[in-house]
Amino acid sequence: MRTFKIGLFGLGVVGSSVVSILRKNQDLIYSRLGAGLEVTHAVTANPAKKREISLEGIKVSSDPADILDNPDIDIVVELIGGITTAADVVLRAMDAGKPVVTANKALLAEKSREIFHKVYEKGLPIGMEASVAGGIPVLRSLKEGLSGENILEITGIVNGTCNYILTRMTEEGAPFAEVLADAQRLGYAEADPSFDVDGVDAAHKLAILVNLAYGTMVPYGDIYYEGIRGITPEDIAYAGALGFTIKLLAIGKLENGRVEARVHPTLVAEDHLLSSVNGVFNAVFLTGDNVDATMSYGRGAGGLPTGSAVVSDIIDIARNLKLGIPAKIPPLSVIRECLAERAVMPIQDISSEYYLRFQVRDQVGVLATITRVMGENGISIQSMLQPSVSEHPDEPVQVIITTHRARESDVQNSLKTLEPMEFMAGGTQLIRIERFQPELKD
Amino acid sequence: MRTFKIGLFGLGVVGSSVVSILRKNQDLIYSRLGAGLEVTHAVTANPAKKREISLEGIKVSSDPADILDNPDIDIVVELIGGITTAADVVLRAMDAGKPVVTANKALLAEKSREIFHKVYEKGLPIGMEASVAGGIPVLRSLKEGLSGENILEITGIVNGTCNYILTRMTEEGAPFAEVLADAQRLGYAEADPSFDVDGVDAAHKLAILVNLAYGTMVPYGDIYYEGIRGITPEDIAYAGALGFTIKLLAIGKLENGRVEARVHPTLVAEDHLLSSVNGVFNAVFLTGDNVDATMSYGRGAGGLPTGSAVVSDIIDIARNLKLGIPAKIPPLSVIRECLAERAVMPIQDISSEYYLRFQVRDQVGVLATITRVMGENGISIQSMLQPSVSEHPDEPVQVIITTHRARESDVQNSLKTLEPMEFMAGGTQLIRIERFQPELKD
Repeated sequence: MRTFKIGLFGLGVVGSSVVSILRKNQDLIYSRLGAGLEVTHAVTANPAKKREISLEGIKVSSDPADILDNPDIDIVVELIGGITTAADVVLRAMDAGKPVVTANKALLAEKSREIFHKVYEKGLPIGMEASVAGGIPVLRSLKEGLSGENILEITGIVNGTCNYILTRMTEEGAPFAEVLADAQRLGYAEADPSFDVDGVDAAHKLAILVNLAYGTMVPYGDIYYEGIRGITPEDIAYAGALGFTIKLLAIGKLENGRVEARVHPTLVAEDHLLSSVNGVFNAVFLTGDNVDATMSYGRGAGGLPTGSAVVSDIIDIARNLKLGIPAKIPPLSVIRECLAERAVMPIQDISSEYYLRFQVRDQVGVLATITRVMGENGISIQSMLQPSVSEHPDEPVQVIITTHRARESDVQNSLKTLEPMEFMAGGTQLIRIERFQPELKD
Repeated sequence: MRTFKIGLFGLGVVGSSVVSILRKNQDLIYSRLGAGLEVTHAVTANPAKKREISLEGIKVSSDPADILDNPDIDIVVELIGGITTAADVVLRAMDAGKPVVTANKALLAEKSREIFHKVYEKGLPIGMEASVAGGIPVLRSLKEGLSGENILEITGIVNGTCNYILTRMTEEGAPFAEVLADAQRLGYAEADPSFDVDGVDAAHKLAILVNLAYGTMVPYGDIYYEGIRGITPEDIAYAGALGFTIKLLAIGKLENGRVEARVHPTLVAEDHLLSSVNGVFNAVFLTGDNVDATMSYGRGAGGLPTGSAVVSDIIDIARNLKLGIPAKIPPLSVIRECLAERAVMPIQDISSEYYLRFQVRDQVGVLATITRVMGENGISIQSMLQPSVSEHPDEPVQVIITTHRARESDVQNSLKTLEPMEFMAGGTQLIRIERFQPELKD
């Protein structure tokens, strides 16, 4: 029996899970691959550290050359995270003619050009399913299942920490800081949660999704992202009163050759399936020109779900090695000569519906002024909600306005005009509303 | 530019959609494949029939040999449906060394042995994504995305007609016959709806799903199926009062080497994602030992979604042809030597929770008798609901009992014992309840 040898960088939660899955499901994997898979070498910063899994049969060291310069290693798996060292590992592996599996979304998003130009040049397969939405094979859907589709829209809940926090805020009416602290205690959020709650992680995943959907390598820095720290229980309650749930969405589209790619808290209609995706679960909604709406749902993080995606990529690459073929499917969905340079649309240019919560002093003419300014900016109002009247004339009241589809820049201009007005009693909350195509409703 | 030539059997709704998609998305498909795809020949029973699409450039005939004996044809697409002729086309194509794409679930389920033994023998790729849940790439998930997973459970809403009817019955409280008539008027149900509403179509799809999940070819005739004709608006209302929605589910598991495969109306907890899958949409929930819960959702039928799946299979096979390789992935997920003979568990052997609606005369001791008989059969009662008391002693009352997990044969024995008792005022409704693993709830 042929056995493919795997060199593993990183023995953290995901790395250990990969080792466990390959052992536990060894016979099953043999039946599907017709060959064996074995982690023979692991490289980690701290080889002496005690691990929860047995490392019997695995040569552990801190020297990358033990894997990268080892002619016996068939497949390199990069699970160390970070960017600089990881990029070095991936590029050196490719140069040595070794296919790579990586779960590193930061690397793939921020260094897409370095990585993918090398991948295309070498013609080697690269596995990256684990980088987006862990256990959900959504990259495979883009590259294979929907290979005949023009992808009209990507709408994803791709950060489990944010979805967990928003779900609990929605269920309990609790404020962000309180739920975050609890999530940290329970291990659903990091001690420094900014990567997750400020939207960076979701932006990385969105970059990978749009690159695969639109055969490009967008400049990661141009992707707009905004986290969930500013969402209040009141916003969630008002959104609920209007028939919406608040989710952190990663949204990708192609508009006149430019990629629309943005991450922000979003109002989603309560009866839309994405509203029912709760807790740490992820879901990616893809709309194609023929297939219409599709959604993939599952765990977006955790050692075993992410490890499972890594294992599926290893199996896929081993199937190539068995046949002696290079990459069967282009790494970014399109062949090299069809890669497109695409700019990311600035957030000012998007159009959307909006939820605006104004804090104003309860005086005559305020609503007239707000609606006049919005009208002058070409914004049409869809609904207005004034949840309570103040008991004291100095106490501010909340006015919630939702708009019909408008340009972001027009909305921003309205807010800039209104901001200095003397009746304004605080900052204005702006949350975008995502409407799905009506034909998805039947 | 290399162009792969496709011979198409069938020019109905799906066949025409395949032609349209290949034309409309020609450039996009070229960018992803690096080759062209062209339908050059079509075989149909009625070549002279006027079609909605232009057949320019396609040689249309009624002679299968025009495709099967034509050395120029690279890929054969079978979309004629039915079993006998379709089997002949697929087997002859394989014998001629031509890879096949088919959307024919009846063929793949009922003639699995004939078809797959040939496919394995020839080593050719076969595309069958369109046979289950149309636009949802769920077969690819089983064969690729979850290739490292032990599949613990498959739970699918795979018949859009039934889901449409049940959704409307739930929303409107309308009886089956009324909604069916309306669905027929709207084109969501066939003039002879039995294939859909009696569960046959779902059973075909389930056979394909379990065969792929468990590397086997189960005897199709052993799969238990039951349709939705017997579901009343009252059942839906009582289920709702207990926190459940009624869905037609296809359920597959592997229990001690035997495949559990059954299709029947099922109570699903209201807060489970499958309960939110409405209208003609399909969804397949797959649970793996590492990845835990995943779900794929989308349109299960219709020309364009199904056509899109066919096109994705054509692209996949063309990618093989470009590389000059045989099938990369075993057709039934496992390599030939690992194919397993697996029996289907008889429905009497399954265990489940149950919803039982008794129609009884309102007299003293009835509940005591029912609960005693069930207790004697080892069945533990979870809840009891008696929605109304009769105003007239002769008028039957409904008693709804849900059970804890019990063996089907014990439940059937209880019903057999109770049936002849003089207080029984009508047949007893039995609907199974599907409980999902508690760890899926966070």
